[in-house]
Parts: sequence; structure tokens; C-alpha cells
Amino acid sequence: MKITAVESIPFAIPYNKPLRFASGEVHTAEHVLVRVTTDDGVVGVAEAPPRPFTYGETQRGIVAIIETIFAPQVIGLSLLEREQVRGRLARTMGNPTAKSAIDMAIWDALGKTLDLPVTELLGGFTDRMRVSHMLGFDQPAAMVAEAEKITDTYGIRTFKVKVGRRPAQLDTAVVRALRERFGDTIELYVDGNRGWTASESARAMREMADLDLLFAEELNPADDVLSRRWLVGQLDVPFIADESAPTPADVTREVLGGSATAVSIKTARTGFTDSRRVHHLAEGLGLEVVMGNQIDGQIGTACAVAFGSAFELTSRRAGELSNFLDMSDDLLATPLQITGGELAVSDRPGLGIEIDEERLTRYRLDN
Amino acid sequence: MKITAVESIPFAIPYNKPLRFASGEVHTAEHVLVRVTTDDGVVGVAEAPPRPFTYGETQRGIVAIIETIFAPQVIGLSLLEREQVRGRLARTMGNPTAKSAIDMAIWDALGKTLDLPVTELLGGFTDRMRVSHMLGFDQPAAMVAEAEKITDTYGIRTFKVKVGRRPAQLDTAVVRALRERFGDTIELYVDGNRGWTASESARAMREMADLDLLFAEELNPADDVLSRRWLVGQLDVPFIADESAPTPADVTREVLGGSATAVSIKTARTGFTDSRRVHHLAEGLGLEVVMGNQIDGQIGTACAVAFGSAFELTSRRAGELSNFLDMSDDLLATPLQITGGELAVSDRPGLGIEIDEERLTRYRLDN
Repeated sequence: MKITAVESIPFAIPYNKPLRFASGEVHTAEHVLVRVTTDDGVVGVAEAPPRPFTYGETQRGIVAIIETIFAPQVIGLSLLEREQVRGRLARTMGNPTAKSAIDMAIWDALGKTLDLPVTELLGGFTDRMRVSHMLGFDQPAAMVAEAEKITDTYGIRTFKVKVGRRPAQLDTAVVRALRERFGDTIELYVDGNRGWTASESARAMREMADLDLLFAEELNPADDVLSRRWLVGQLDVPFIADESAPTPADVTREVLGGSATAVSIKTARTGFTDSRRVHHLAEGLGLEVVMGNQIDGQIGTACAVAFGSAFELTSRRAGELSNFLDMSDDLLATPLQITGGELAVSDRPGLGIEIDEERLTRYRLDN
Repeated sequence: MKITAVESIPFAIPYNKPLRFASGEVHTAEHVLVRVTTDDGVVGVAEAPPRPFTYGETQRGIVAIIETIFAPQVIGLSLLEREQVRGRLARTMGNPTAKSAIDMAIWDALGKTLDLPVTELLGGFTDRMRVSHMLGFDQPAAMVAEAEKITDTYGIRTFKVKVGRRPAQLDTAVVRALRERFGDTIELYVDGNRGWTASESARAMREMADLDLLFAEELNPADDVLSRRWLVGQLDVPFIADESAPTPADVTREVLGGSATAVSIKTARTGFTDSRRVHHLAEGLGLEVVMGNQIDGQIGTACAVAFGSAFELTSRRAGELSNFLDMSDDLLATPLQITGGELAVSDRPGLGIEIDEERLTRYRLDN
């Protein structure tokens, strides 16, 4: 079970339809595949999605930090020394998706070694999650049509609507159109990706007061410290901290400071080892959580559903597990399938996924 | 005054004597020289020191993010559009020294273009700063001998003692030996670089209660949120937030949360444009500040003293401006000189420094 190699392989797969939101847009999945190999010949995999506008990472930077710092720190440790791995990686600040991909690839290798699914090693609460779909910026009619297609094709009935445009009516009109089209047959929440000010957010939320939202997420910048607190204090729905609370300590600071009242957990940025920490902290503090999506590919989505299904709190709400639907292709030999609005966790060992070597050869950027 | 090129050149210069502290040690200055060129042929320079254990940056990662994201965002803007530059760079999270080097190189080019020193463009309060010297981990006798050499050679009489070892007596013995050797002819403060727990810090501070410390800095991890607050609340000297408050919003959060009562300003991580923001915020909040050192070379030190001299609050206390003394060489044609315990700001245009092209050729890693 000794780790003998940590590879970081940059690859690029275009999206069929770019996702647009207040902090940026994504046209191509320029991710890094991380592969951890052990002396038993077991290989664990995960992917790191660089998000410079959220965490400051770049594809080249992820490869650099894994090659120069993380791989040497991890090689020689056992798959079971996960807290040692965490401690060594934690010495370096930031770089959340690089660290998380290593952590999750180790868990994948551990599951394969023990012949057990990762989700059962983590908690084993259930075997599937309801799926929430993200609707990026567009005209109301187009976004309603997209939602219709998604409900018809995949049975998904929870939607997170990207907001944060100016004027805010561009977005509130979308939420209203969705509620009018679907009535109470769907769940709706909004994500501002820090696009509005606090006062714009407050006005928009008042305008949507009759639309029965589940949550509001990152409507304004967390760095607008006092106006964020003013906003969160007046809302009657939980305010989800996502990119403003990527670590357990951030959760503590933001929640105690009154800047957040719920938490998004993303395996892409806290792996399994630290997602469990965020989960246990949130549960202990009495907070609702949502499994978020870092615009993950299918590998990352398999990680998110493996974690989310492992606990009651994370599987209670629909998880954001469908961003991969917009990609033109992926690296998996067997694609993930969303049916009846749900994504099942693989019951095979590890993450239960297999990399298609031919596709990897086609999309990798380093050869 | 239009920016036509932004270069990022990795270089490496060994230290004569490695600096050792609780969060790491530095043997070689593996920095990145940033050069900004304008359509008038003016060239501004600054350096970015990658500190993975503090900010998560690597040398390769800094080059990557400047080449792929920052340079394209900045080229075409005027040297006077500094708030536009800032806004564009701020879209990307983290990467503080990469952003700061670009910002300061732009200020250098602006000063040269206007034939004015940067320090006068910034504020022009005074023309020099008292210097504080950092004493890294060693035995008490060796650290006293180092302090004697520094006072004799450079006239420096303020020392920041690196602490955070276990048992804490390794460090408290050093501080006591320094006070006993020099009496009240020197100023002393301590920097834990997050090495101790809160309770270890509290015990150590009680043990040093008779040693007349100026400040205590980052004794325990800021991510130990509640125990940090417990510690800071009981100290009778200001507790400096350094790496835990690298941005204005972090200053607000940490100070309002009771996790800090003073602030370190480092041009290496907030450049000139955001160091001025941190300064103005700290002044407005009524906090003491110290000009810190990111283990800067002479280029970075020239930036720190240019900023520190520009304002009353930053020049009141001795600034940490002497880490370059331990480097075996540097890139400047004319080395900085500390005399009488002070470092004078250049009265020449821009930063008033000139890169020695022969040395750059010798130390650069990209050719």
C-alpha cells in the first residue's frame, strides 16, 4: 500500500455549451488528471479543475506544485497514512484542487486495494443522490427551455440559477419564469458568484420573495465584510458560503462572523479527507450543507456523489452533479448516467470508475 | 505610457546562511523578476518571492500565471490606469506576490516616466526608515553573537526573534539572553510563524513578561480560530497579523473577530496599490503597523522602504528591511546600504534601482 508515484497529467476537453456566471465562464475543461500508484500496482485517480478566479490555480501551476512539492511529500507513505498526507500537503497554502485530487486518488487506490467502494469507507449512508442542475446566464425563455430539457431527459427537478447580472431584473425574470413554468414541481435556489453588491442582493431577494427559494449563495463578495453581514442578517433563507469558506477555519470565521448560514461542500477543493472535516464541523455547528460542483468532469462528479451519498446531511438535499452533461466528451470508459433525477454511486471498489486510455491519449496536453 | 510587455524571469541566488523559522527555511532566493515595458521604452522592475508555505505560490506557478493570465490583462493599459490593472488582477484569487510584482513594476515605470521617485508619488513622508533585523532559529549564544555583529556592522538596534520551537524554552532563552546582553539599548519582538498552540503561546508570553517586548506576531495558527481569539484577548502587547491578514478584507475580519490587534504590511504581497489600501484601512481602524519582510531580495527591499518611508504610520516603527544581508549576491548594479541602523530611500526616479544585466544572465533559470 506504499505510494510509489504521483502523476499530474494536464488535459483539455471542450464544452458543447459554455457555462456563464458572474465570476467567469468556462468553454473548455482544462483539468489535471492525478494518478497515484502503489507498490502493489494499484492506481487511484482523481481530477483537479483549475479555477483561477475562485482559487488562483492554473493548469500549469497545478502540475508544477504537484511535481515540485506534493509528489515528493507523499511518495513513500502508505495509503492508510492519510492524515500524514494531509499534514504534509497542508504546509503549503492554497492550491485546493491540486491537494484534493491527490487526496481523492489516494482514497480511490485505498478502496481498490481493500476491494471496497470509497463511499462505504467514508460513511455508507445511501447509494445515490438527487441531482441539482445549474442554469448559466441566458435569456429567460432559453433558460426555461434548458430546464424543460433537463427535467424531460434526466428527471432533474432542482435547479440552481446563476444570478449576479446587472440590472438584477435580468436574473429575477429568469427565476420568476421558471417558477411560473414549473409551479411547485421544482426546487429553486440562486447563486450570485459575488456579482452583486449587498444592497443589490437585498433588493433582488425582496423581488423574489414570493418565489419560494431554497437558498441564496454568494450573492455579494465575502470581502465586502460588513455589508455581507448586513445582507445575511436580513435574509429569511439560508445564505450558502461557497468560495468564501473553502476550509473548516473559513467556515468557522464566516459563520461566527454572521457572513454565512449554510455551507457548500465541494470535493474538488477539500477532497474526501477535508470534506469530511467540513461536514463534521457543519453538522456540529448545526448548519445545512449542499454538495457543490466545481464545474467538475465525470471523474470529479464521481467523487462528489461518492462523498455526498456517504452521509445523511450531504444526501438530504439534491447535489450539484450535472455540470459534466455539457462537456463534449470525458475520460471515463463508462459514462456516468443520471436517471430519474438521481445519480447512483458505483458499487465497485474505489471510486468505481475507469479511465479510457485512448481518450486520455487524445486529450492530454503533455505529449 | 502604454504597457507593451510584461516579462517574468525566474532566477536563483543562494543564501550564505539559511534563515530558519517555524513555518520553513530558505536556502536559496528562487524569485521571479518582473519587468514591465512601455511604448516609450521605459522599463519598470520588481521581484516576486514564491512562498508556498505562506501563500501557495511556486516559482513555476508565478511564471505560468503571469504569462497566461496577468500579462494579457495588463498589456495595452496605461501606467496611470493602476486601478484598472488592480481590478483585472483582482479577478484571479491568491497569487499575491505575482500580482504585487506587476503592480510595483508599473509604479517603477511610472516614476521613471514622470522623473519622480515612487516614494514621493506614494506619500513622501520621509526619506529613510529605521531597520529591524530578523534572527532565525539557532542557539542563544549564536543568536546573541549574530545580533552583536548586526549592531556593530549596521547600527541596527531592533530585532525580531523567530520563535515557535518546542519546547518554548528554546526560544524564550534566546529572548532573555538578548535582553540581558543589550539591556534597554535594543527593541525586541517575537514572531511565531504559527509554530505554537495558543496555550503554548500564552505560557511563553508569560515567561517573557519581564522582557519588554514590542509585539508578538503570528504565535499560533489563525485557523485555530477560537483559541487565537482567546490568546490575543489576554496579551498586553499588540498581536501582529501577518500571513493571516494579507488583504484588506482579511484585516477587517481578523481585527473585528478579535484575532489580531496590529498589522504587518508587506509590499511583496500587496504591492504599492494594495499596501496603501491596507495602510489606510489600518490607520482608519486605529491599528499599529509594521513593515514586514517576505525574505525579500534587494529589489523587494527597495520596494518596502519606498512604501514605508512614504507615510508616518509605516515609518514610525523600524521596518524589516535586512533579510537581503544573508544573500550571497543580488541583481542590483548598486547594492543597498544599511548605515547607522537606517536604510535611505533612493532619490532617483522610480524605485531608483538598476538591474545588473550580467548578474541577471548569470542567475536566471530560463536560458
